[in-house]
Parts: sequence; structure tokens; C-alpha cells
Amino acid sequence: MDSQAISEWLQLKMDRREEGPLYAQLYRLLQHAILSGHCPPGTRLPPSRQLAQELNIARNTVIQVYEQLTLEGYVSSEVGRGTFVADISHDLALPIDKESALSEVVRSAPPVRLSAAGERVMASLGHAERQMGAFMPGVPDVSEFPVKQWARIQNRHWRDPDPVLFTYAPAGGLPALREALAGYLGNSRSVVCDSRQVIVTSGIHQVIDVAARLLCNPGDRVWIEEPSYWGIRNLLLSLGIEVVAIPVDSEGINPSAADMENPPRLIVVTPSHQYPLGMVMSLSRRLKLLEYARLSGCWILEDDYDSDFRYGSRPLPSLQGLDEGRQVIYAGSFNKTLFPGLRLGYAVVPGALASQFGSLTAELFREGQLLLQSIMTDFLTQGHVGSHIRRMRNVYAARRGALLQAIHGHYGDTLPVIGDKAGLHVVLGLPEHVDDMAVSADAAKAGIMARALSNYYVNADDAKKGLVLGYGCVRESLIPRSFATLAKVVDHHLA
Amino acid sequence: MDSQAISEWLQLKMDRREEGPLYAQLYRLLQHAILSGHCPPGTRLPPSRQLAQELNIARNTVIQVYEQLTLEGYVSSEVGRGTFVADISHDLALPIDKESALSEVVRSAPPVRLSAAGERVMASLGHAERQMGAFMPGVPDVSEFPVKQWARIQNRHWRDPDPVLFTYAPAGGLPALREALAGYLGNSRSVVCDSRQVIVTSGIHQVIDVAARLLCNPGDRVWIEEPSYWGIRNLLLSLGIEVVAIPVDSEGINPSAADMENPPRLIVVTPSHQYPLGMVMSLSRRLKLLEYARLSGCWILEDDYDSDFRYGSRPLPSLQGLDEGRQVIYAGSFNKTLFPGLRLGYAVVPGALASQFGSLTAELFREGQLLLQSIMTDFLTQGHVGSHIRRMRNVYAARRGALLQAIHGHYGDTLPVIGDKAGLHVVLGLPEHVDDMAVSADAAKAGIMARALSNYYVNADDAKKGLVLGYGCVRESLIPRSFATLAKVVDHHLA
Repeated sequence: MDSQAISEWLQLKMDRREEGPLYAQLYRLLQHAILSGHCPPGTRLPPSRQLAQELNIARNTVIQVYEQLTLEGYVSSEVGRGTFVADISHDLALPIDKESALSEVVRSAPPVRLSAAGERVMASLGHAERQMGAFMPGVPDVSEFPVKQWARIQNRHWRDPDPVLFTYAPAGGLPALREALAGYLGNSRSVVCDSRQVIVTSGIHQVIDVAARLLCNPGDRVWIEEPSYWGIRNLLLSLGIEVVAIPVDSEGINPSAADMENPPRLIVVTPSHQYPLGMVMSLSRRLKLLEYARLSGCWILEDDYDSDFRYGSRPLPSLQGLDEGRQVIYAGSFNKTLFPGLRLGYAVVPGALASQFGSLTAELFREGQLLLQSIMTDFLTQGHVGSHIRRMRNVYAARRGALLQAIHGHYGDTLPVIGDKAGLHVVLGLPEHVDDMAVSADAAKAGIMARALSNYYVNADDAKKGLVLGYGCVRESLIPRSFATLAKVVDHHLA
Repeated sequence: MDSQAISEWLQLKMDRREEGPLYAQLYRLLQHAILSGHCPPGTRLPPSRQLAQELNIARNTVIQVYEQLTLEGYVSSEVGRGTFVADISHDLALPIDKESALSEVVRSAPPVRLSAAGERVMASLGHAERQMGAFMPGVPDVSEFPVKQWARIQNRHWRDPDPVLFTYAPAGGLPALREALAGYLGNSRSVVCDSRQVIVTSGIHQVIDVAARLLCNPGDRVWIEEPSYWGIRNLLLSLGIEVVAIPVDSEGINPSAADMENPPRLIVVTPSHQYPLGMVMSLSRRLKLLEYARLSGCWILEDDYDSDFRYGSRPLPSLQGLDEGRQVIYAGSFNKTLFPGLRLGYAVVPGALASQFGSLTAELFREGQLLLQSIMTDFLTQGHVGSHIRRMRNVYAARRGALLQAIHGHYGDTLPVIGDKAGLHVVLGLPEHVDDMAVSADAAKAGIMARALSNYYVNADDAKKGLVLGYGCVRESLIPRSFATLAKVVDHHLA
């Protein structure tokens, strides 16, 4: 293209309806023309005044673009002669002047080859796009969150904040929150610790992520419960860890003698309320597990999954307390008790590991959100967490009752309901011959979330059939109707 | 111990000054006495009425503790006869009745053996506990953040929030923010994308974490710049990745022919403003890098490190835009422009990878904070980000000027100052014979942060000596005095 052709081409290509400054558009078009070889080295660009007139834009815009292109080496200006496309061919190993070779290469998208871990995780994605309603498990009723109390504390903290709270968090998190958590967990969960062992986190995922990277090499074994929460499995897979699924029985995780001969580096358990089956780990099993960990030198990660919601009995003290915090990394969060999007949790780490754990968290995640942590400290110490939990315990107990009533009303005792009087879900057992994934898919079409129990198993051969039904985020009055819709789908598959 | 001895021992041990409910304390003491073998099976616990009297606590508290211990199998009650310690020895492989063997085992803390990656990261921790003041690099002036504007928008969003904003984030983040970012980055950084390619993140660490797990197997090679930010190196090490440090020259990353024969899976670069040396990657080098990535099938991660702060020249368009987003994952954040503790950033991912990238982020991190993302959307689209950047550009330019003046005033041209007119820091070069880490340590003692340049190198042999001096978070008026303090330390080492 010569100078006139460039001008005409630009008139054709400039799109005034396009958002963003004309400057950026003109820059991109000229850059493209040069890189694609349409304006070969030596081509004279139209004089700025003429181009501005023909494009009907400010001359200054054209001058700025030419200056930018000069700065970056696309063109060079010679005083009194004009602006010329520079020879950039020596910057390229491919010839650009003949067949627009670069342009061809540019157009070909690269082949997507994921890591082995990436492929495995992609094959077992678990996160749902819909996060509320019947019968989404593991999600509390966010509409009940005491927004006003929180906003009042938040406003006070934002009135004249200490700038230090806008910088990165110190390793372990805000000291005041760590202190408050040590007291809170000691009282409510019999966790034995001082505040130096408390690490503020964003939730259970982060705790497992840090623990695994701190303690496990790629290829090391980690035990998880079979069945268990898909998120932990995927997280461990993404680190190249060998995930060994150990079956649970009515007392909790139950490794065989053969399993025990190959000790893992880490054992992840949910002793308070097994997820998703809902039983409590027995004292006898707790003691055996702690002893095995001591003898084999491995660590236990206690995911204290919804221990706050128990109906009718006091929550069992933590495994961490029984162990006095020697071998157990305790993890919990406010994401289930307050709201999932809060992203505030905590780990209590054995003294011997605490400083490394805090440092690695700071190093990997560069945490911040100290104002949020400061607000959380007040919310906790002023007793709002406790009173919200007490209030919601009644709400959830009623919803649980309504769901059980709906189930019994429809099925009597023909289908088992699995799960202790705790948490935010129950499991409705299905006969072995039923394809629970198909039930789940059909339920979704009918507008009901009902996760298939077999989906929580690593080994398909061990999988029990059933539906994991959350009652946390569905109003009591809607439960009968929602369950009737679901039952229609289930009945179809039972027949 | 018999019943009376237990009662006396408890009187001795109960501590009323201890925080927390007496219930929890009594429970722990009895549990300990049983587990340690001090109360062997068959021991009768003191009657609840008597114990309550002797301990001067409510009888109901004692009854609750006994019930709890019964529930957990530590004791059993026989109506009319009393409460007896249960035989839990069958739960243990070790004998507990002779030498308090369990107690011994409990006391011995487990040996701490970290993963190889954990050890490497612990050996090169970079995060600082102090995050403000002269001459902390890479930190903006958080005291200048427009708190009131932000708080006003925040209040509006918290007035009657949609409960959906309290749940987990959908993969990729809040759609409105992704949309706003696509427009903003197109205009300000010539990033070529649509909103489906934009992933909301917490910052550069998360982008690298996800990219590496999605694309690299443990043992795969990733190129980083030599020198470069320690955080990225540690993050990659924690994933078991082989980190290859490629030297930079005045035009940016400069791989040798030998390097190029072993292509990496991913190349992490800072083309806008190399960190820490501060040069801009030349056009020629950009084109070569893109072409190499295309031919070798690897991905480029563009860390658009403080591209917003340039003094005197327009920022260069992104590498992503030059590539039209085929092979480049673009990453930036508001953590440097607004405040580090905000934890809001973004990745722009090639179309072919975008959905996997978003899914893996959701799966690994279970993101939330949608209200924060919603506030950020308004803050961005109402132009507050742009005006804050413009205002701070002047503030930082003045601070940069003051620091350069202080340096030249003291050293003239005897020590080189390295770095383009951009960013939040300069590098003060030191002669090869000076131990810059010792200078840094002595400066810290004098109250001045001055990171050693050699600390940013992977290979000690390549390390240049110098001090990385941030001027972002120190007031202009304090710069001369702070530099004078530092110069005294430097002079001592030069002599």
C-alpha cells in the first residue's frame, strides 16, 4: 500500500461505533498493517494533517499515534520528509514481506495440552453455577445473615481506617483475630492452642493446599475418606499427589491392615460429621487414628465440617483437642456458619509447624483483607457469631424436620435416610440398581439440585447409590413441594 | 485414684481464672485423667452432687460433663450405682494401664519433615512483616487511597444486598466485573479480549498458581526472568516445577540458543517494566518471544507489573494485544494501583483456555467476595480507578524525583541508577565487591528497608549488586532524611 492506499484502508476500517478512544483504534490498525506485511519497510505513512482530515479526527491524535509507533520502533520519522515504516524483518526469524507469514502463524491458535493433573480435575469438576435453593448441599441460608449488624461494624471500621490495614497481611493473619479465634475455638470446640498456632485462611481449600505443599512431595500418598467432598480430591490431584480413598464405616474412616502398611504423609478426615454420609467418628476410632498417626509419623488434617450445627446433642470436642494439637492440623471456617462468599476460615497448626505454615501461606497467597479480618474480630468477640449459629440451628432443625417428614410421608421406611442429627444435609439412600447420576441429571431438569452420592466416591466399585439433599438454603415452606417434584423423578427411576 | 482422690485432684487443677466455661475445663481434666491412665477402667467418679459441692460449681455442670463423657464412651452410668470409667483399652493397641504409655507417646512431638518444595521455599522466604515506609519496594501509598469514595459505594451495596452475592462466585467471577474489565483493559492496555476471557483473581500469585497447575506437570520447566520477583519463584517451586532463570539484558528476557533447545511449558515475563531492573521489553524482543512461543508450543504469562505508573511517556501496549491473545495469558491487578490488601486482580486468558482456567480457579479456590467484586465494578466504571491512578502518577513522579535528587546529591554519577521512568522503585547499583545483603541487613537495623538486588537472582554467580529502593510508600518530605540514613550505611560498606 502506498500513502494514499493506507489512508483509504484506514477510512474503511475505522469504526466510530467501537468503544474506547480513537487513538487506540488507529494505533492497532497501523500496527497490524505493519506486522502483517501490508505496509512493507520504507512505506511512507500519510502526513498527519492529511490523515486527520480524511479520517475526520483531531490531528493531535494522529501525531500521538505516530509518536507511539516511533517509540516502539515500528516507524521512523525524518524531519521534513515524513514518517516511514521501519525495517523490522531483522527482529523476526520468519519472513514477513512475502506471504504475510507472521499473520498466518498468528492466526493459528496453539494446541491446548493440559497437565495430567489439569486433565484429571477437568474430568471431575464439582463446582456448581447455581448456589442456592432446593436441595443444594453444603450451603447455608445466606438470606438470614444479619446484614445490618455486620454493616454497622463495617461502617465503623471504614470511618477512619488505619492505613496499615490496607497493606499485605502479616504471616498468620491479623493478630487480634488470631487471639479471638484461639479463645473461641478453645471454648466451642475444645481446641487446645495458643494464638501463635492459629492461621487465618480463606477456607478449607487453602488449608489443604498449604498443608499438602508444606508436607508432601508430588507422588506422596494422602488418605481421604471414601466417600468425601470432591473439592479436596481435586485440589490434591492438582498438586500431583497420590490420593488414596479409604472407606468409611459407621464409626468413620476404616483403613485395612494393607492400607496401614503403606502410611500416607497426611490423612484428611471429617470426624465431627462425615461428609457426605453424616456419621460422627467414634471415640474408639479417634484414638486408633491418632495412635496410628503417631506411630507412622503422618499428619492428620481435621476438617471440622459443619460441627456447629447439631440438633439435640452437644457437638463432640475436636480431634485436635484429644490429641492436644501434636499431630492434628485443625481446619474450620465461617463460610458455612455466616456465608460462603465471606472467605474467612482458620487453621490451628501444631506448634512445631505453626511458623512454617504461616510463612508458606503468606508466601504463596500474599494475603490481605485485614480490614475484613478486623471487622470479623469484632463480629466474633461481640458474640454475633454465637447468636447467629444458635438462631440458625433452630431454623435448620425445622427444615431438617420438614424434609424428613416429606421423605417419610412419601417413602415410609422403604428408602433409608442416612446421617446423624447434624449438618445441613441428609442422604436419601437408593437401591443399588438405580443410576443416581441419571436421577440427579433429571432432577436438575426439573429445577431441583440433588447431587448423586456415587459422585462422591473415587472408586466406582465402592459407590453406594443415593442423593445428597441439602436443606440449608431452602425455606421450610418450600420443602414439601420441592420434595414432591424430586420424588416424581426418583419414582420414575425406581420403577 | 479413687473417687475421693479424683475430687481432690480436680479441686487442685480447676482454675477459675482460666477463660471459658467451667464445663469445658472440667471435661478436659476428666478426659485427660482417663486417657492418661490415672483413672483406670472401673474407677467410680465422684457423685455429681458431691463433686459440685466440693468444686463449688452448679450440679448441672457436672451432670452435663458426665453425660458428654458417657456419650463419647469414656464412662458408663449404672442407675443407682454411679458413673464408672469405661474400659477403652480395647480401643488402643498400646497398653494404657501400666506406665501411662499413651501419655508418654502423646508428649513426644512428631518429627517435622517438610516436603522438598517446602524446604526450598522456607530457605528463601521473601515476605516482609513490615509493609510500609522508606524504601519498601512494590507497595503503593495506601494512605492516599480514596477511602470515602470507596466507603460510599460500599454502603450503597450493603444497604439491601442480593443474597446471591453472599454465595460462592461463579467460575470466572462476577459477570459485571468481567465485562467492565474487558472494556477497561482494551482501552488502557490494548488487551484484545471479550469478557468470557477475563477471569477475576486475587492477584498475580493466583494466576501463576492456576496457570502452572493447568499447564505444567511436576518436573516441567518454567522460564522466569533473572533477576525477578521472589514470590513467583517460590510459588512455582511449591508445585514441584523446574524453575529456569533466563537472564535479562537491556531489552528484556534473553534466552540463549541452548536455552531455546529445551523449550519450557510456560514463560513468565514482565514486559512493561521488568521487575526489579525496570527496563521495558523492546518491540524486537517481544516479537521474537511471541514467535518462539508459537513455534515451540509454549505459553507466555505476561505479568503487567505496574504498567500504570509511567512518568513522561505513554505506557506501552500489552504483549497480549500484540499477540491478539493467542498464546499470552495476561495478568494484572488493582493491588498495586489501589491497595495491596484489596486482593483483586484479573487474568485475560486465550479463548482456547478460558473456560478451563475459570473452572480450575473455582475448583481450587472456591472463590467468593462477590459483594466486593460488585463494589469494584462500580468503582471502576465510575472512573475512580482512572482518576486515582492519574493523581498518584503525579505523587509518585515527585517522590521519584526527590529520591533521584537525593542519590545524585550524595553520589553524583559514581553509583549507577537503574530503571526506566516508571513504576514504584529504582535500583541503586553497587560495585561488585560490596555485599549488598549485608548493606540491606545494616540498613534494616537503621530503620530503612533496602532489599538487596542479589536476592532477586536464582543463580548467585549472575547476581548484580545493588539496592532495590521503593519510593511508593514514603512521603516526599521524608525522602532526603531517609536516604541520608541509608547513605551512611552504604558508605560504610563502600569504604
